[in-house]
Amino acid sequence: MLRTHTCGQLRIADVRKKVSLCGWVQRSRDFGGMTFMDLRDRYGITQLVFNMETNAVLCQQARELGREFVIKANGEVSERSNKNPKLPTGDIEIIVESFEILNQSKLPPFTIEDNTDGGEELRMKYRYLDLRRNPVKLNMELRHRMAFEIRKYLDEQSFIEIETPVLIKSTPEGARDYVVPSRVNPGEFYALPQSPQTFKQLLMVAGFDRYFQIVKCFRDEDLRADRQPEFTQIDCEMSFVSQEDIFYTFEGLVKHLFNAVKGINIDNFPRMTYADAIKHYGSDKPDIRFGMTFIELTEIVKGKEFKIFDDAELVVGINATGCADYTRKQIDELTEFVKKPQIGAGGLIYLRYAADGSLKSSVDKFYNPDELKKWVETFKAQPGDLMLIMAGPAAKTRKALNELRLEMGSRLGLRNPDTYKPLWVYDFPLLEWDEETQRYYAMHHPFTSPRPEDVPLLQTNPGEVCANAYDMVINGVEVGGGSIRIHNRDMQFEMLRVLGFKDEEALSQFGFLMNAFEYGAPPHGGIAFGFDRLCSLFGGTESIRDFIAFPKNNSARDVMIDSPSAISEEQLKELGICLIGTDRNKI
Amino acid sequence: MLRTHTCGQLRIADVRKKVSLCGWVQRSRDFGGMTFMDLRDRYGITQLVFNMETNAVLCQQARELGREFVIKANGEVSERSNKNPKLPTGDIEIIVESFEILNQSKLPPFTIEDNTDGGEELRMKYRYLDLRRNPVKLNMELRHRMAFEIRKYLDEQSFIEIETPVLIKSTPEGARDYVVPSRVNPGEFYALPQSPQTFKQLLMVAGFDRYFQIVKCFRDEDLRADRQPEFTQIDCEMSFVSQEDIFYTFEGLVKHLFNAVKGINIDNFPRMTYADAIKHYGSDKPDIRFGMTFIELTEIVKGKEFKIFDDAELVVGINATGCADYTRKQIDELTEFVKKPQIGAGGLIYLRYAADGSLKSSVDKFYNPDELKKWVETFKAQPGDLMLIMAGPAAKTRKALNELRLEMGSRLGLRNPDTYKPLWVYDFPLLEWDEETQRYYAMHHPFTSPRPEDVPLLQTNPGEVCANAYDMVINGVEVGGGSIRIHNRDMQFEMLRVLGFKDEEALSQFGFLMNAFEYGAPPHGGIAFGFDRLCSLFGGTESIRDFIAFPKNNSARDVMIDSPSAISEEQLKELGICLIGTDRNKI
Repeated sequence: MLRTHTCGQLRIADVRKKVSLCGWVQRSRDFGGMTFMDLRDRYGITQLVFNMETNAVLCQQARELGREFVIKANGEVSERSNKNPKLPTGDIEIIVESFEILNQSKLPPFTIEDNTDGGEELRMKYRYLDLRRNPVKLNMELRHRMAFEIRKYLDEQSFIEIETPVLIKSTPEGARDYVVPSRVNPGEFYALPQSPQTFKQLLMVAGFDRYFQIVKCFRDEDLRADRQPEFTQIDCEMSFVSQEDIFYTFEGLVKHLFNAVKGINIDNFPRMTYADAIKHYGSDKPDIRFGMTFIELTEIVKGKEFKIFDDAELVVGINATGCADYTRKQIDELTEFVKKPQIGAGGLIYLRYAADGSLKSSVDKFYNPDELKKWVETFKAQPGDLMLIMAGPAAKTRKALNELRLEMGSRLGLRNPDTYKPLWVYDFPLLEWDEETQRYYAMHHPFTSPRPEDVPLLQTNPGEVCANAYDMVINGVEVGGGSIRIHNRDMQFEMLRVLGFKDEEALSQFGFLMNAFEYGAPPHGGIAFGFDRLCSLFGGTESIRDFIAFPKNNSARDVMIDSPSAISEEQLKELGICLIGTDRNKI
Repeated sequence: MLRTHTCGQLRIADVRKKVSLCGWVQRSRDFGGMTFMDLRDRYGITQLVFNMETNAVLCQQARELGREFVIKANGEVSERSNKNPKLPTGDIEIIVESFEILNQSKLPPFTIEDNTDGGEELRMKYRYLDLRRNPVKLNMELRHRMAFEIRKYLDEQSFIEIETPVLIKSTPEGARDYVVPSRVNPGEFYALPQSPQTFKQLLMVAGFDRYFQIVKCFRDEDLRADRQPEFTQIDCEMSFVSQEDIFYTFEGLVKHLFNAVKGINIDNFPRMTYADAIKHYGSDKPDIRFGMTFIELTEIVKGKEFKIFDDAELVVGINATGCADYTRKQIDELTEFVKKPQIGAGGLIYLRYAADGSLKSSVDKFYNPDELKKWVETFKAQPGDLMLIMAGPAAKTRKALNELRLEMGSRLGLRNPDTYKPLWVYDFPLLEWDEETQRYYAMHHPFTSPRPEDVPLLQTNPGEVCANAYDMVINGVEVGGGSIRIHNRDMQFEMLRVLGFKDEEALSQFGFLMNAFEYGAPPHGGIAFGFDRLCSLFGGTESIRDFIAFPKNNSARDVMIDSPSAISEEQLKELGICLIGTDRNKI
């Protein structure tokens, strides 16, 4: 090794040792006869000292080192007179006796500091410099630690990690596939997996009753802010289990992770049906760090000639504890918030229950104080509370009120990123109706089983069928989802028919799976976690990009290596493909 | 859980427990009033017993269960009168009280036994059944255990696992890339990585001084028997290290693996230069489980009018200890072996040193006994030995003699698959001259550094330059290879020029890396292991396919899912590509 120690290692006990350190020049300060230099590596920062009086030549050379130069410094560990309690190495410094420049550095395009002056685009272009910054480095270390602890827990639970192929087959269901032209089989393509779903089911058929994999998946979607074309999944499957067993096993995983990685004990793992989540939170991923659950008023507000309520399918509100002193301006802000196009509500009704017990609402001319008292009782509000009410079509209104609830939670400081409240949401609908294409889509995926008691409904009223499907939600974020799968060929066929597959399509796309079901497929189910998102949740931020070493931008482009890029005519020809509009000139 | 125990779990201490087991019907035997059934799961086999006298209905139902049916059986653990010492569960059996068919099975297309009657093609098509067979299952478990222990060791050594992107950029150097058309950036393509080489180097620039990743890589090659289009690499890189540090660290990894996974202690890790390996073994991956090293005779055999030796650049042989009693027929077989087209030698000369001290050779008419005595001395042969000698152009002759040496090693039982002899081969040439394209290619890859003392030769005699490159070889198999890298922009540029890159090509392909070298790139080096191959070596077989859950065949096809396959016109259109020869009709 070029070094004897890292820059995070030396302590007071090491004083008088001769050491060699390697690292990057973080900054240097000249004080008359002395030069102090912070040398940085992955493990920390150590102060180097050069003395003009004892070694002027060396000190002069040191003063010529620029930021981010890589050096090897040799010297003696010495106790600092001016200790820095913020640094683990802050008790010591190195009196440098000689050094060597291992590599020079141009001036970096942004500062390598916790709070950098570099913008997103610049940081992505020079990601190798961005990764030197402490917050980004810590994210990568967190990710490594999490992956390691996940594997440790699952290994202890007899899961085995099996790699499934990356070059698979394109299927029309789900998101768009990335495809890979085959040179050896001209005119044919592989697809990159959106998930190893069918392969993990085949592994269950193969008898590996506890499988997992931390695995890259791919989706060619139009990217939203928080999506990446390639992302990482913790993919798990078990045989001979009920939903209860899955809950137990993966609560265990998440508890282990919080404990091992963050020192947090999660003792409570509540469960909520999809129907309850929608009814009480307006969302299938409720943030239960705070209450403020939905209170329905539909029954008690009708018939008072307030047209908005009279016409509404649903009148529903939340009670913001202690917010009765909100000003007119604050309430107007909330009204503007819910009227934003992304939320799209028509407006917001309020009922203020002042500390003195008086009531004031925006609909006083339709409802008398006795009637408003009834609202207060329904909300179980206390003096000092502010009730916020919305009305309209049920689904849309709940969705909008969910946004308002989250906004109020944030305003009231009820969404502390260091508090973690996980829960299971279960009993999801099996199917979603799509107005545009006039067909049902699988809400989870086509391999999810219906609840046994709902099977007859598949023929008569598919939209009402509940699935053996569940999501794990933490702090309003869906971190994982799964289901008990279909393991019967006939049921799988029926499911594909409900989804509009012609029999021959079903066979050509999923024949291999349905054939496998004929050879002793065990009952099985599983779950997949979004690993990037789980890391960002543990890291306390929302952006998954900060937890990916080399992410792509919103145009699915890697600006650092400048990819995607054109390939040669020769490559295209070998692959038997051409770019649309160019073939004509070539034949 | 549907079960209380697995089929590998119950012991004599569990007698009288009420249990439920789930598994597959392996086989059943009817003995008059009794039916004995082997129930199999991933963990083992447990014997179920049905008794016609005590429960005729149940026993009759059990007799109707076919092979590979999945059942849940409930009953009581009982001591076996006829114990089976070969099974861990062989002391007990289950007196079944009830059972449930969880799924039926058609008759499998081949037997689910250690030695199956299924051929390769059939087993691949029904891979989910093949994976039920014990030897294949054990391979998957071995692979899991190895990956886990690799991560454990490297984590303890402060390595962090960082995921690098799968959608990267196509580069012309090396093997053919698999490419992925970009829908969002029409006419442009991603490439799948042949290795994360440049990314791991960027991670070193980023300051992560110990990186690893167990990662899928991709090569669009014409497949040989033992190649897969997608394969898994243990990819590692370190900063501030010399070759010595890499050797030490990864000897440690391999020692840990042998110890943790196979209980074998490796105490010796010899090193050999490339030049010595070629001179003494005729191969850069010598199998050192046995000696029989090359002895050169060129100097002492010339000038005796034996034209083959007189014309030969090299005369070289091996001494096969104790083989003097080989018959004429056996020697003829060896001669035929070396004359096979894959080996291509002209012939084989032998010198037999009989137990009685007499000498007999195939060239007795050119060499008198005194001259042959000299050969014997050079070989350090003993009475009873057989010397096998080849002559011709140096490189070709060494290559052929290497094959003969390995063949003799196998014939003499010197290549025990349970004996493991690793070594490092180092000081590889930097470049290889290719006659066909009349240019140099990088022997390892273009990022490998030349030995500092050889740098001046780059201009004058590039073929003579030695690289800081090394391979780890175990039992004649190259399991890993790496190098100390170039970390200087100018040197990287020069290297690419030597490889025939025009400056603008070098910049457009590798500009991001060379730019990164300008911002404080530390000295660094690394290694990559072929994980599939390492697994097969640990598993004691040669075929990597047996250690991949879902391998592709020699046409890069997955016969189980039938991939690659055609994709829809709509998909092609969205991607902006067409199949050659079809575009004309579409515009």
